[in-house]
Amino acid sequence: MKFNNRNIHLSASAKIGKNVRIGDNTIIYDNVTIGDNTIICNDCVIGEPTNAFYHDKNYKNEATIIGPNSLIRSHTIIYSGCNLGAGLNTGHRVTIRENTCTGQECLISTLVDIQGNCSIGNFSRLYSNVHVGQLTKIGNYVFVFPYSIFTNDPLPPSNNLKGASVDDYSIIAVHSVILPGISIGKHTLIAANSTVTRNVNDFTMVAGNPAKPIKDIREQINKLTGKSHYPWPYFFDRGMPWEGKDYDKWLTKNP
Amino acid sequence: MKFNNRNIHLSASAKIGKNVRIGDNTIIYDNVTIGDNTIICNDCVIGEPTNAFYHDKNYKNEATIIGPNSLIRSHTIIYSGCNLGAGLNTGHRVTIRENTCTGQECLISTLVDIQGNCSIGNFSRLYSNVHVGQLTKIGNYVFVFPYSIFTNDPLPPSNNLKGASVDDYSIIAVHSVILPGISIGKHTLIAANSTVTRNVNDFTMVAGNPAKPIKDIREQINKLTGKSHYPWPYFFDRGMPWEGKDYDKWLTKNP
Amino acid sequence: MKFNNRNIHLSASAKIGKNVRIGDNTIIYDNVTIGDNTIICNDCVIGEPTNAFYHDKNYKNEATIIGPNSLIRSHTIIYSGCNLGAGLNTGHRVTIRENTCTGQECLISTLVDIQGNCSIGNFSRLYSNVHVGQLTKIGNYVFVFPYSIFTNDPLPPSNNLKGASVDDYSIIAVHSVILPGISIGKHTLIAANSTVTRNVNDFTMVAGNPAKPIKDIREQINKLTGKSHYPWPYFFDRGMPWEGKDYDKWLTKNP
Repeated sequence: MKFNNRNIHLSASAKIGKNVRIGDNTIIYDNVTIGDNTIICNDCVIGEPTNAFYHDKNYKNEATIIGPNSLIRSHTIIYSGCNLGAGLNTGHRVTIRENTCTGQECLISTLVDIQGNCSIGNFSRLYSNVHVGQLTKIGNYVFVFPYSIFTNDPLPPSNNLKGASVDDYSIIAVHSVILPGISIGKHTLIAANSTVTRNVNDFTMVAGNPAKPIKDIREQINKLTGKSHYPWPYFFDRGMPWEGKDYDKWLTKNP
Repeated sequence: MKFNNRNIHLSASAKIGKNVRIGDNTIIYDNVTIGDNTIICNDCVIGEPTNAFYHDKNYKNEATIIGPNSLIRSHTIIYSGCNLGAGLNTGHRVTIRENTCTGQECLISTLVDIQGNCSIGNFSRLYSNVHVGQLTKIGNYVFVFPYSIFTNDPLPPSNNLKGASVDDYSIIAVHSVILPGISIGKHTLIAANSTVTRNVNDFTMVAGNPAKPIKDIREQINKLTGKSHYPWPYFFDRGMPWEGKDYDKWLTKNP
Repeated sequence: MKFNNRNIHLSASAKIGKNVRIGDNTIIYDNVTIGDNTIICNDCVIGEPTNAFYHDKNYKNEATIIGPNSLIRSHTIIYSGCNLGAGLNTGHRVTIRENTCTGQECLISTLVDIQGNCSIGNFSRLYSNVHVGQLTKIGNYVFVFPYSIFTNDPLPPSNNLKGASVDDYSIIAVHSVILPGISIGKHTLIAANSTVTRNVNDFTMVAGNPAKPIKDIREQINKLTGKSHYPWPYFFDRGMPWEGKDYDKWLTKNP
């Protein structure tokens, strides 16, 4: 049904792995490497050149690497200079600008806009329409829910950008704004529609505009069980490396 | 000008009604039915397969139905398993995932992202960039303004999703967040940038983060007339079934 | 690498300037004029017809003008009736609806959605996913940061739309909402996640939901220098007409 080999542009310098499938109308520019078993759906652009391409006659496209076993859904644009780890799963119409690195098994959903020069760890998930400003650093097992924004300019407009950072296992709920240079610790929960103006300590839940500490995340009760839902890895493992395992045992082996 | 029959992919199993027009570069996959007089503009994907397609060799595309007299604007993606009623009008780059049902004469504007397994009634309008989480139920004559979000996970991340619901004639202003499982009554008004954390009663206006009841919507005055603007069907009928008619009489016949 | 002249549709009535480059899969409809040295990247639609096209057999596409030295990035849709000044720079997947005018050297970033009948001055910058409702007026040297929204319906739904306006040099931070008909003065700063419900005076910083005046913008200190960062033109000139010049001298010559 899909993958009819129609109207594909494939650069002669692209290196395509085994069992790779490429969708109709997709464009793959110079110096792209695609790992084995990866699927690039229709209408994608991989290895999009940076701005310099339009001005510099000697422009050479930086290497773009998409790891094996990835699924890049339709209409996604990935710039040159990106290095995206194995098992990447994207939604539709994702934009990932230059020099972005992602670890293994990340999810980057529909309409996510990563502005470039960002790093994302392993097993992290960015849901629909998340906006990641330049210089943002996102750890491992981090969930960022729809329409949340990472900013980077403390005094707009300026040339002194400061990226925000989020440490492992943290959860950022929908429509939240993370101000420039803010550090968010491990196992935090940023409530929906928060404006995070101060650093957030490990295991802290914050809410509001400006966001204030509400409680220790471990006090957040699951009404169905009467017990805390956090740290969440004890209660959620779908797609995580401890799936089907005892999290504590896994953690001991993977500190 | 448009509709030059260039670079179209049309599955042999698609059923195309009378007077249907299909735009350039559009892809129509297996088991799609398009009603009479419907226009599918350029660069659309209709009947996009679900995730199982990439893993299951015996995958069969679920039926996708687009009603008659619809206008699907360019770059829209509609997944298999959707059943979209007559007179649907979409903006550009809309994404409607699997098993979404819409009634008659809905508007789904540019960049709206419907995550699947959702239902929307008749004559409802979702404006630009509205995000509709899985399991959301939207009634009839509901207006959802840009960038509002329906969420579904009370304790993220978890596997116990609870969709929100909005009853008939309600208005959700821009940038609002509806928390998981929330019920919003009839004839309500959710003010701009609200975070709705509690159920909302019929005829109630709420505002803020968290949103609090402000007034009875019928007390919301139109400064131009000095009278209440709500219930709005007495003052707005463009595209509604009571257009050009007395709303009370129409309502008596259509309770 | 790019610009291989594949699958392009170019109306016979389009007027294409010197040294114009057009990307693969791009569609240019009737009555479009593109200035010299402008680059239209792949998968764009220029001169998209208005709604009347689908109903009116005598429809003629209004003139669409894109000034010289512009760069329109991929997947952008520009409607007929737009007049976009020289040096326009767009991101990807921008939508600009009918009868929108922009001055010189504007930036309109990825996923911006301009709803039509809007005006934007010179050297203004709309960052990712900004939504500009119909009838909005944006001045010169204005910065609007991601996901901010200009609304236009005081009593939704109604037919009495009132656009908002923003005067020169103002800064609107991320995720802000500007209510219908609001006037924002010169040299203002709207903090992140603000809901602007009242007019904002010149040189005023506002924040919150509803947004309240916080301070005179000139009291906003740059921690790195210990001095005020505002008015910002004294500290930021990249891409501005006073770049590399003394701002006061430039201002004297360009009052």
